[in-house]
Amino acid sequence: MIRKSLIFFFTFVFSLFSLFSGEKSNYDYVNPFIGTGGYGHTFPGAVVPFGMIQVSPDTALKEVGNSYPWCAGYQYSDKTILGFSHTHFSGTGHSDLGDILLMPISGKLLMEPGEENSPETGYRSRFSHKSEFAQPGYYRVKLSDYDIDVELTATKRVAFHHYSFNKKSPSYVILDLIHSIYYFKEKNVWSYLRVLNSNLVVGYRQTTGWAKNRKIFFAVEFSRPFSDYGYKRYDENFYYFRSKGKLIKLKNKREAHEIYGKKLRVFFDFSGIKELYVKVAISGVDIEGALKNLRKEIPDWDFERVRAEAKKAWENELNKIHVKGSEKNKEIFYTALYHLMIAPMLYQDIDRRYRGIDHQIHKAENFTNYTTFSLWDTFRAAHPLYIILYRERIGDFVNSMLKHYEQSPEGMLPIWPFHANETWCMIGYHSAAVIAEAYLKGIKEFDYEKALDSMVSTATNKNYGGLRYYEKYGYIPVDKEVEAASKTLEYGYDDYAIALMARKMGKKDIFKRFIKRAFFYKNIFDKNTGFMRAKKSDGKFREPFDPLRANYGGDYTEGNAWQYTWHVLQDPEGLIRLMGGSKKFVKKLDKLFKIKGDEKKYGSVEDMSGFIGQYVQGNEPSHHIAYLYNYAGYPWKTQKKINLIMKRMFDNTPFGIPGNEDCGQMSAWYIFSALGFYPVSPVENIYIIGKPLFKEAAINLGKDKEFNIIAKNLSEKNIYIKKAYLNGKRLKRAYITHHELMKGGTLTFIMSSKPNKKWASDKKHLPPSAYSRFRAYVKD
Amino acid sequence: MIRKSLIFFFTFVFSLFSLFSGEKSNYDYVNPFIGTGGYGHTFPGAVVPFGMIQVSPDTALKEVGNSYPWCAGYQYSDKTILGFSHTHFSGTGHSDLGDILLMPISGKLLMEPGEENSPETGYRSRFSHKSEFAQPGYYRVKLSDYDIDVELTATKRVAFHHYSFNKKSPSYVILDLIHSIYYFKEKNVWSYLRVLNSNLVVGYRQTTGWAKNRKIFFAVEFSRPFSDYGYKRYDENFYYFRSKGKLIKLKNKREAHEIYGKKLRVFFDFSGIKELYVKVAISGVDIEGALKNLRKEIPDWDFERVRAEAKKAWENELNKIHVKGSEKNKEIFYTALYHLMIAPMLYQDIDRRYRGIDHQIHKAENFTNYTTFSLWDTFRAAHPLYIILYRERIGDFVNSMLKHYEQSPEGMLPIWPFHANETWCMIGYHSAAVIAEAYLKGIKEFDYEKALDSMVSTATNKNYGGLRYYEKYGYIPVDKEVEAASKTLEYGYDDYAIALMARKMGKKDIFKRFIKRAFFYKNIFDKNTGFMRAKKSDGKFREPFDPLRANYGGDYTEGNAWQYTWHVLQDPEGLIRLMGGSKKFVKKLDKLFKIKGDEKKYGSVEDMSGFIGQYVQGNEPSHHIAYLYNYAGYPWKTQKKINLIMKRMFDNTPFGIPGNEDCGQMSAWYIFSALGFYPVSPVENIYIIGKPLFKEAAINLGKDKEFNIIAKNLSEKNIYIKKAYLNGKRLKRAYITHHELMKGGTLTFIMSSKPNKKWASDKKHLPPSAYSRFRAYVKD
Repeated sequence: MIRKSLIFFFTFVFSLFSLFSGEKSNYDYVNPFIGTGGYGHTFPGAVVPFGMIQVSPDTALKEVGNSYPWCAGYQYSDKTILGFSHTHFSGTGHSDLGDILLMPISGKLLMEPGEENSPETGYRSRFSHKSEFAQPGYYRVKLSDYDIDVELTATKRVAFHHYSFNKKSPSYVILDLIHSIYYFKEKNVWSYLRVLNSNLVVGYRQTTGWAKNRKIFFAVEFSRPFSDYGYKRYDENFYYFRSKGKLIKLKNKREAHEIYGKKLRVFFDFSGIKELYVKVAISGVDIEGALKNLRKEIPDWDFERVRAEAKKAWENELNKIHVKGSEKNKEIFYTALYHLMIAPMLYQDIDRRYRGIDHQIHKAENFTNYTTFSLWDTFRAAHPLYIILYRERIGDFVNSMLKHYEQSPEGMLPIWPFHANETWCMIGYHSAAVIAEAYLKGIKEFDYEKALDSMVSTATNKNYGGLRYYEKYGYIPVDKEVEAASKTLEYGYDDYAIALMARKMGKKDIFKRFIKRAFFYKNIFDKNTGFMRAKKSDGKFREPFDPLRANYGGDYTEGNAWQYTWHVLQDPEGLIRLMGGSKKFVKKLDKLFKIKGDEKKYGSVEDMSGFIGQYVQGNEPSHHIAYLYNYAGYPWKTQKKINLIMKRMFDNTPFGIPGNEDCGQMSAWYIFSALGFYPVSPVENIYIIGKPLFKEAAINLGKDKEFNIIAKNLSEKNIYIKKAYLNGKRLKRAYITHHELMKGGTLTFIMSSKPNKKWASDKKHLPPSAYSRFRAYVKD
Repeated sequence: MIRKSLIFFFTFVFSLFSLFSGEKSNYDYVNPFIGTGGYGHTFPGAVVPFGMIQVSPDTALKEVGNSYPWCAGYQYSDKTILGFSHTHFSGTGHSDLGDILLMPISGKLLMEPGEENSPETGYRSRFSHKSEFAQPGYYRVKLSDYDIDVELTATKRVAFHHYSFNKKSPSYVILDLIHSIYYFKEKNVWSYLRVLNSNLVVGYRQTTGWAKNRKIFFAVEFSRPFSDYGYKRYDENFYYFRSKGKLIKLKNKREAHEIYGKKLRVFFDFSGIKELYVKVAISGVDIEGALKNLRKEIPDWDFERVRAEAKKAWENELNKIHVKGSEKNKEIFYTALYHLMIAPMLYQDIDRRYRGIDHQIHKAENFTNYTTFSLWDTFRAAHPLYIILYRERIGDFVNSMLKHYEQSPEGMLPIWPFHANETWCMIGYHSAAVIAEAYLKGIKEFDYEKALDSMVSTATNKNYGGLRYYEKYGYIPVDKEVEAASKTLEYGYDDYAIALMARKMGKKDIFKRFIKRAFFYKNIFDKNTGFMRAKKSDGKFREPFDPLRANYGGDYTEGNAWQYTWHVLQDPEGLIRLMGGSKKFVKKLDKLFKIKGDEKKYGSVEDMSGFIGQYVQGNEPSHHIAYLYNYAGYPWKTQKKINLIMKRMFDNTPFGIPGNEDCGQMSAWYIFSALGFYPVSPVENIYIIGKPLFKEAAINLGKDKEFNIIAKNLSEKNIYIKKAYLNGKRLKRAYITHHELMKGGTLTFIMSSKPNKKWASDKKHLPPSAYSRFRAYVKD
């Protein structure tokens, strides 16, 4: 008895302490509104880490062409909410989803969304950010037109809504199966709804769009029975079942329990009910899967328990890094860590069934299936960060990619897949890089032989991205294939990844073939202009050329020559040599951060934002560039630039992300950079040191291991590294290895207001890359 | 060695004997072209008994509104063939299907079907009936525009095509995924094709239409690899992959192995190949199901073996009845027996999975799942005939209906279902009658309790067909519900069926409720006009009234008062009383066969054809009428009418069926009538004697039992029954019982040119019906 009381006493004291000390947990620092304005394209709704269901308010229904700002369904500057849909992308620059919109309303029954500027014309409602509150796994808002309070939380596959109807008036829940993110006229291929009873409806929705061939199944359960329901079908003479059982226009009464068509909206009448809870489960497999998910993940109606469990799931993940620093920086940092864990998304039912890329139903044996791999973005820093923080999930990610390969009609690894569809978005075959990195960093939970086969198969597919010309010419010829310069450059890094994996596996032929390809970047470097350029099949560079010109379908991908010329992740050393040595290289790099573009002349390009000169923090091709100074022996310049970028480009406001968050990549860049290092070439197993943001940081590596980063004397002015120690021993190089990081230890920086230009400037201390390691395999 | 030779010798001699004797088997008498002209709506293609796949030439692509003659895809008078699609209805008056059209062509690559009158504008080809040949399970034609010979055969789930390209020129196979029977603009919801390799493609097709929500999956395997392929997508800017690898317009090369869209046509290049075999498997479940069906049902390329197996399957079924008679009558008879076995169709994969009416995938345990129940037609005589001939399938049919009930969102038994859809076509709840009949005739393989529950649930569904008013008013009020007179009449028979089953099961309450409903027909009989009429909820008959007026959506269903007044299957006796006794009844019945309609005044009605006066042999409401004379003690008049109808209305030509064949019902009418009896009220377990067509007939009842019908002195003139014997004993009644039939025996008729007006005219020998059995339960 005494013991118990004591424990209770200590627990109580400890709680009081936390409460009164005002100490905020990592969880408390997360602000899901960061990035919801401008180009961040994040959403504020409720999701658990890597969760399949992502329920969030949508503030607009926009047609493709006018929908870029609404990639995540929500824009902070909007004044109305349309409702709460269940699938979203976090931070993408192209979009889709927004499935199964639910909206509680009261008063007049309105089945159409209505106009933004006169929300009373439809079911949408005004709202104020003052009434909004969001934490990981929880979202709350007041729909002010109706005086309805909405709370949302979620498990992995089930969203939990709570509506409080505060007015006494007829009240309804609208289920809009037309609503979509990136809407267009032919988006809705088919939808189906079945009323199982007055508390439970099920159905599916089939759409085309970014995913050409997508199906999502759902089950919606209400805590109270609806007294009536009805629907409008917009693709035919509509049928309409008006409230109170009075039929207005219903083609066939017998069809009332089963509703289908291309464009459907349904209402459920909850008049007289004050508190309503709604559970919405989704499945990529079938209705039965959605029902199972619903029943097993939330068997009761305990909203607070589900909310607390979501919070706990987030705390477990967010506590993997602890930092000490300003409140603002901690808010940005933990929000970045939060955004890191929204994609990839789980994509299998609770019974392990999932829809494969072959549109067949499979059972995931010995792995968990994930979808939404924004690989062109995330191979850079997000996947490297997952390997450090969420090592236990890497096998699942890789196996999901290998299953995609097995099921792919083209025999290819994923490019940009989601919900059992390949979108073919962006360029490269970066899943090869992600898989090679997992192998090289010792992830054991996948079949290496099959993986290497899949990488070679993908990297040699004659129908993909000009690959049929690649080895013949030694580059992608721009007269045969668009975005040829970017492709040649990006393929090179993926080829390097394949080569390194093949080498370690003892596959000499594969190694030799791909290490050659890893140096193809040299073939498109134009010594005259000093830029990487698109070359034609006749061996001549394409004219006219302007290094400031960026365009889609041209020579580069979401960028221009100024940004892409540095895109030799696997071999900055070789690039420096091409440019005539370190000094010339650094001079050009300095210029990058100064030279101005000409928007009037060239127009702006979607996805390019966050400029410092022609450096574009808002888009991925620039992400490694500030770290390249290290390769030339000028780490102090990296420190200066990183300090500048972090300060100027990130903020703890809705507009605090400089460009698309891109499924974790932008956040991973920030987290790495804030910790003080960055993986320029993830397969090289090193991290290039930049400039730490926090005085203290600790990465929990599991099994009681920690890696600590201490920045002594760090201040607004003391942004330069004077000295560095690894586990108490002087560190003379400006990088650390993956092995050093993962075994735990302490990296100590002594900061100063003056650059230490000598530190890590010796040739022998420069980071390794392809040239120093493998130049023997190519002609110089 | 000696033994073997002997066996060989005998076999040889026996074969020679059959050959030279010229004796034709029942199989040889079947002419699949009967009914392919006019309103028969049958198709000549290849199918096995009750087979899931039904491959047949389609001769037109017609829009709804103009498509009635092409319900089965084929019209005998057409001059061109569009190709060979894999799903058809046999004899229906509404339609759908026509999935996965394949067409071999040569010369110019044409992707559109082209015009009927100038077939060279498209892939369609002229053909001549001279080059056509069909037998059960086999079809052959020459496509004369291309000089291509086509042969078709089938297993249960796989169609087998054989193409001989006789010309040396480029040759292709077109796969048209737009083609449909009952086409309309929005018919194609989605389609998907995946090229697995140069011999094998898979995919699915999703349509709306009669079935609102239908999916069919397929696998197509070619015996030789195609050298190239390409497609046009008609719902977007089309993509086109031209022959010889030259791309003309292809939006995204990477999508080449996976093709999707609403409207797709694909070609495969087989230039240089002379003999090509193609296997096409379908599945209602998924692609995997189609592939399994394909691989397991036809693992090789032996067309002749598959054809021989199809023939054997038909012979087994066709040999269940043997008749002796004229060549022409045998041709009509065995073709009718053939048509009896095309629906219901098998609807499950070889692994027992099937798509339920809930659009979920189920596994059929302990039964085999069937679809396509044209119940408004087939409850009359087709299901009764199945119980006699194919007793082993009845449990499967009933269990398929019970599963439908379990999976139905309305808790209803099937009305007119196919391919996992309820069409709600026609009226009544006749599956209740079919199930009750199975129970009353001793079929054991289903759950009686569940069956009775399902019947009551269906017959009391408030949202169906005016049932919410039925018991309150004692009829369906026409101001509340269309086709009210027909509904009141047809429900009565179904109610009688439910009552009989409930009674035998000892469910007194259910019996009492439904036996009352079985007499509701009295409530709509108008003594003044002598007709069954639509009555309003105020108790008055609707005016104006004209017994010759037939219209849809009015008082009657595909009929007028002249036809529907007799529709008291369960109680001809009660009807006779209502009409004022036998004489008046017979007089009115005589008039029915004489009175002329006025097409100018009333227009013609689809589905009404084959008139004798106002008797309509071409549509089901008349089917029992000629047998009603027996109930009044005038069997000789039945004999005369049946003789007339059989002679005038049926022929061994493509135009030899007087109206829609209707999934076996028209054929069942013919077969029963030809044998000499007919089940006016199938649940009464009696067969009303008519007039035999053959001098000898034998029904094989299995287990060495046979029922023989012998008509002595039968001739063109001797059409009347003078005397009858059952197993040598004088038969004084003009009906036999189901029990008498099923235990085997011999029914002998002595025929004469003069009617025996006394035979079976006594009151005590009249057939039983509701009035004599249950009049105690209702007020007179």
